[in-house]
Amino acid sequence: MKDSHSEFRPARVAILGVGLLGGSVARAIRQSIPDVHVIGIVRSAEKGQRWVDQGVVDSVTESVADACVDVDVVVVATPVDKVAEKVIAVAQASKPQCLITDVGSTKRTIVNSVSQCPAAVAKFVAAHPIAGSEKTGAEHATANLFVGKVIVLTPSEQTPTNLLKRAEQFWRLTGGRIVTLSPEDHDTHLAAVSHVPHLASSAVAKLVCDQSADLVGSGWTDITRVAAGDPAMWLAICQENRPAIEEQLRRLAGSIDEVRQWMHTHDDESLLRWLTEAKTIRDSF
Amino acid sequence: MKDSHSEFRPARVAILGVGLLGGSVARAIRQSIPDVHVIGIVRSAEKGQRWVDQGVVDSVTESVADACVDVDVVVVATPVDKVAEKVIAVAQASKPQCLITDVGSTKRTIVNSVSQCPAAVAKFVAAHPIAGSEKTGAEHATANLFVGKVIVLTPSEQTPTNLLKRAEQFWRLTGGRIVTLSPEDHDTHLAAVSHVPHLASSAVAKLVCDQSADLVGSGWTDITRVAAGDPAMWLAICQENRPAIEEQLRRLAGSIDEVRQWMHTHDDESLLRWLTEAKTIRDSF
Repeated sequence: MKDSHSEFRPARVAILGVGLLGGSVARAIRQSIPDVHVIGIVRSAEKGQRWVDQGVVDSVTESVADACVDVDVVVVATPVDKVAEKVIAVAQASKPQCLITDVGSTKRTIVNSVSQCPAAVAKFVAAHPIAGSEKTGAEHATANLFVGKVIVLTPSEQTPTNLLKRAEQFWRLTGGRIVTLSPEDHDTHLAAVSHVPHLASSAVAKLVCDQSADLVGSGWTDITRVAAGDPAMWLAICQENRPAIEEQLRRLAGSIDEVRQWMHTHDDESLLRWLTEAKTIRDSF
Repeated sequence: MKDSHSEFRPARVAILGVGLLGGSVARAIRQSIPDVHVIGIVRSAEKGQRWVDQGVVDSVTESVADACVDVDVVVVATPVDKVAEKVIAVAQASKPQCLITDVGSTKRTIVNSVSQCPAAVAKFVAAHPIAGSEKTGAEHATANLFVGKVIVLTPSEQTPTNLLKRAEQFWRLTGGRIVTLSPEDHDTHLAAVSHVPHLASSAVAKLVCDQSADLVGSGWTDITRVAAGDPAMWLAICQENRPAIEEQLRRLAGSIDEVRQWMHTHDDESLLRWLTEAKTIRDSF
């Protein structure tokens, strides 16, 4: 039996970066804990007021220091290349028992950078909710974005056990399912199932030309959907996870070259086996 | 003003191969022409009876000769590697003014093979409706599968003009939009926007491993959806469109290698430009 009194219920939460993911965390937490106060840390309080008006957050501020002075949790939801510096800034502005977490799609570089700052190590548990969309912006944020989705936590060896437990309890409030991995394993696996698939999607999109544009079907539309994602965000992901992405790009190019060889030598048996293996994998999901 | 009396309204139609596409043509035509009679040509009339019971076709037969003796249109909806021989068999069993068409995803090899038989040339207009699904079987057939979709017709230089016009009128009955291309242009373009994207989808599916299976998100699910398609059907497509597919596989592998080089040399500017171009293309759909 779970003792609900031991569960972590933050009274005040700050979201640094109110976009699709940050906004969805805000909405999810406000739905789980009706009396929580969620503060959005935004670049322009004037523009950010719409997120208050639309019910995404309770209040907004431009000041990290103001927002963090008295909150129990800070969720850093910036592009991945800004996460580590923001985590360190938040660590310096927040109370000792504050939990800091993030939503970045890469983890090794972030965790390594944060490890240079002991004050941040004591508060930070890196997280990556496997949820999102090619859409961006808090106008698309929903309270149920994380329901049933995997939330990967990637503690370092320095992460205090009780802090990790608190991070698990916090993220469970969003409806997600916790999986714990090392930052390195996370990045290796995500290169294979997310980062390189994204690049493959962009490469497929670029095969189209004016004459063939009329002939695309639903298969092409599905395959290329994520290629509509924000290029700057995906560049930052590539920059943060170079070695693993390079390795998986090598595997992908090798696989495509192998298929081309089979086509050229009429090795239909190998091609059929390969297509069948891919179908078996896909059917298992 | 369109003169509806000049429109082609077949009284009897045969569908050779009652699967997703053949079944959907049957349903679409029966919806457009309530008093049409649609005969399904099936391998087992006993098993095929369910398509009558489910309202896909009006009757079924195992005999091409019996079905074709008195029909106005025959739609050959077999896998691509069987289309040409079936078209020729149907040409020999049908009346002189019969229109024969197909639904194959490749066209050059089919049109070339059929061109060896003058009786078939006089009746055949090759067609490829750009519609479908990773699902197979007439149980998924719907009357509106082709509504608003492109139907590519690929006449040869021998195709009689009035036959092409009749084929256009027939396919318009399904709700599709007619585009006419040479068989060669069709195959080149389809390799780029369908056949090679399919192979890329399979290659992406094969990047996953047991440890990363839990981490796939909606992007991976979208990209790999078509990899669940029938391997035998896709092998046949590859066999029928080798040169164009090889060429597009070369382009795709080259593109992926280029990205890997940029990653390796930290050429972020080229990578960002490439991602932005892919997004611009995708956003235009």
